[in-house]
Amino acid sequence: MAKPSRLPTQEADFPGWYNAVVREAGMAENGLARGSMIIKPYGYAIWEFIQRALDDRFKATGHENVYFPLLFPVKLFEAEAAHVEGFAPEIAVVTHGGGQKLEEPLAIRPTSEAIIWDTYSRWVQSYRDLPLLYNQWANVLRWEMRTRLFLRTSEFLWQEGHTAHASEPEAYEEALQMQEVYRQVIEDVCAMPVLIGRKSASERFAGAVETFTLEAMMRDTKALQAGTSHFLGQNFSKAYNVQFLNKEGVQEHAWGTSWGCSTRTVGGVIMTHGDDNGLRLPPEIAPVQVVIVPIYKSDEESATVLERAGAVREALSSSGVRVKVDDRDHLRPGFKFSEWELKGVPLRIEVGPRDVAADVLTIADRVTGEKTARSTAESISAIPGLLADGGNALRADALAFREKNTRPFGSLDEMREGIAAEGGFWVGSWCGDEACEKTVTESTKATIRSLPLETEDPGAPCISCGKAGAEIATWGRSY
Amino acid sequence: MAKPSRLPTQEADFPGWYNAVVREAGMAENGLARGSMIIKPYGYAIWEFIQRALDDRFKATGHENVYFPLLFPVKLFEAEAAHVEGFAPEIAVVTHGGGQKLEEPLAIRPTSEAIIWDTYSRWVQSYRDLPLLYNQWANVLRWEMRTRLFLRTSEFLWQEGHTAHASEPEAYEEALQMQEVYRQVIEDVCAMPVLIGRKSASERFAGAVETFTLEAMMRDTKALQAGTSHFLGQNFSKAYNVQFLNKEGVQEHAWGTSWGCSTRTVGGVIMTHGDDNGLRLPPEIAPVQVVIVPIYKSDEESATVLERAGAVREALSSSGVRVKVDDRDHLRPGFKFSEWELKGVPLRIEVGPRDVAADVLTIADRVTGEKTARSTAESISAIPGLLADGGNALRADALAFREKNTRPFGSLDEMREGIAAEGGFWVGSWCGDEACEKTVTESTKATIRSLPLETEDPGAPCISCGKAGAEIATWGRSY
Repeated sequence: MAKPSRLPTQEADFPGWYNAVVREAGMAENGLARGSMIIKPYGYAIWEFIQRALDDRFKATGHENVYFPLLFPVKLFEAEAAHVEGFAPEIAVVTHGGGQKLEEPLAIRPTSEAIIWDTYSRWVQSYRDLPLLYNQWANVLRWEMRTRLFLRTSEFLWQEGHTAHASEPEAYEEALQMQEVYRQVIEDVCAMPVLIGRKSASERFAGAVETFTLEAMMRDTKALQAGTSHFLGQNFSKAYNVQFLNKEGVQEHAWGTSWGCSTRTVGGVIMTHGDDNGLRLPPEIAPVQVVIVPIYKSDEESATVLERAGAVREALSSSGVRVKVDDRDHLRPGFKFSEWELKGVPLRIEVGPRDVAADVLTIADRVTGEKTARSTAESISAIPGLLADGGNALRADALAFREKNTRPFGSLDEMREGIAAEGGFWVGSWCGDEACEKTVTESTKATIRSLPLETEDPGAPCISCGKAGAEIATWGRSY
Repeated sequence: MAKPSRLPTQEADFPGWYNAVVREAGMAENGLARGSMIIKPYGYAIWEFIQRALDDRFKATGHENVYFPLLFPVKLFEAEAAHVEGFAPEIAVVTHGGGQKLEEPLAIRPTSEAIIWDTYSRWVQSYRDLPLLYNQWANVLRWEMRTRLFLRTSEFLWQEGHTAHASEPEAYEEALQMQEVYRQVIEDVCAMPVLIGRKSASERFAGAVETFTLEAMMRDTKALQAGTSHFLGQNFSKAYNVQFLNKEGVQEHAWGTSWGCSTRTVGGVIMTHGDDNGLRLPPEIAPVQVVIVPIYKSDEESATVLERAGAVREALSSSGVRVKVDDRDHLRPGFKFSEWELKGVPLRIEVGPRDVAADVLTIADRVTGEKTARSTAESISAIPGLLADGGNALRADALAFREKNTRPFGSLDEMREGIAAEGGFWVGSWCGDEACEKTVTESTKATIRSLPLETEDPGAPCISCGKAGAEIATWGRSY
């Protein structure tokens, strides 16, 4: 195994730093097909913890998992006008199967509203059949021109929830509930603070009435959309004819939601918490929470030290800590330290012959950078607390960083110059007019990342047209 | 919700019975694209329990999960001659993406040896990089002419393990180990007894040196291959140039295995355990292990009975039992009984006003068909044991059924007539010659399902050519 190459600093070359971390930490690499991604064990393990955290909460809120086909007739896609306009340019098409040209070309799903709502039209007849609260874990494919590992790849892994309801308020509440579920996983589990809000009309999901979003700030001050939950109104039920007989015996169209969170989140974790030495992982999603590095010179030392390391591993493992002894004997401890730092393991325990003799362990904390020697017993019992502290510190750091890089502004000029110089989020008054939104975006390369869930009176004129403000918008450049 | 239609009996129409169970129990239905499948919540939940059982054991035996792309260049597939010959006729091809014709057509994976071994050629340099013990959970697509829900669909869900090793014995042991992992899940968790054996050369995975198989007998006496584990020798490492420097400093080709288990297993569970009233589920994979059906007429009775039902649910749920109260008030108890029987829920508790008054619960056992009234407290504490007994009874039933339908034979005529009359497995001496295998298959429509792991001297002449026997082969018709 090659020694990890030095990472570029975040300040000098953030994209280069990101690519190097993804590569050197063994998280992912490019596949052969355009824009495809191979997710390596370390990256996939992080995704599995995120999956589990999401899936547990989906089930706790009454959802069940299902699986819909990867392929569907291209023409099925065309029923919802806004939806097809949004997704048609990104579709991959299967034209041959089993050595024959297909009678009808098949689309690889870029998202599954079309096939799912078409199916719901057969599953729903009466109000008693509602709500349908279904989710699927799946791969989807969108033909992307510029790809980036985890952040934007042609094929990616995600979950997509698709629910149908008998009333508008129930569907609207569902969309908000799933935004809150995402908040719990993104903020509480992944330690990424997010803005909880709505998208402007131009940034909505193609076919949605309202898109609720969770926006995180990366350490280059750009925004990453960490999950979205859409209130679909009756757009899809009308397009795919999903009707039910209500309690009063009247036919109605069902109300819908959809919500998705993807492997992109792994990229968000990297860019929210990483530093110039590599990844820093919150304990809940760290595949290895504690790594034990034995330090020895002679065979005799090796035996003593490895025995102690094994005992510590057993003690931690039996209390539920994910712990690993790095006993590779062809690598020096210093190399191992760098590698585990780069992989973002929260805590490193060093055990040398003198530590064994003194019954002491030295714990190095990836977040604070501190090294503390304590008795073996004290060290072991301190670890769960240190892990939790580390996660909290990452969350607090990220929040402080976002707050430091979020600025109010009163004019377009101020924001244009400010964002060019300092990046970050900019909060200002907007009249709600799409023309003004477009003007600002063209001038600043920033988009509206989030509007408050409850519209607030900005009490100031629109920063673009100067007419009465209608919304307080948070702007930023984004991934 | 419509009352479940009567099922055909297994004896009168086994395929019709299977299709009706899959439909009426809400397990799956056909998608719009040819041979595609929509897995409904009840079917998917069973798959999730099988997934968890497999995944836990993969991790316990040192494997990590990864994810490789859905699409890869068609030409990549062509490196391993036997492999491409086996799979080329089943490939679906993407020719257009993002509105453009692709420069190079892309295959949708029918299995991932090609892309994974191509990648391993970049991951493996030294013996220190080995073994690679990776698995992925994925969808694959094989263009099938005759499809059947769960059993044979164009797209299906599975896991595929792909390992690379520094020595032949290590890879061979790995393939056997994974067969044993499958045995644990198929026999111990899914309660499906299996023959543990090898495939004949003609039935091997395309590109394998040895295919280890687990063959189950369905209740129509046909065989279902419930999982396979392949020792690949150096076939793929040579085709994709996966070489490593061994401890002696010499370049060698790595040794490989692959192993897969799919949603087909759900079909196997249905056809192993189901009876004329529908599914019967082993407790480990039953989405609902206990259903409580409240029985009442007046509102007053309803309140009393639902309160008791809720208390029983809490008591069971807190001891880890998956329990549901069927409180739908527009359906009669008799309808609910049939529906939960059809869905194969192991235990049903009936609670009526007189049961509440007498502090009694009546438990109906799906496997034995018995109904037993006991005090509430006794009933609750009996449930874990009853669930385990049910799973054991299903396994014992299936084993007895297979044994009853497995017969030795001494001549081709005997087997041809016997299998036409009675189906089942037929065990006889085979010389090992592919020509004889073909003769028997053409004459009986049966294939060799399994050969013993360790070749045994049959002590009898080949049932086809009469020359010396080399193997004891088990023959059967199969799914």
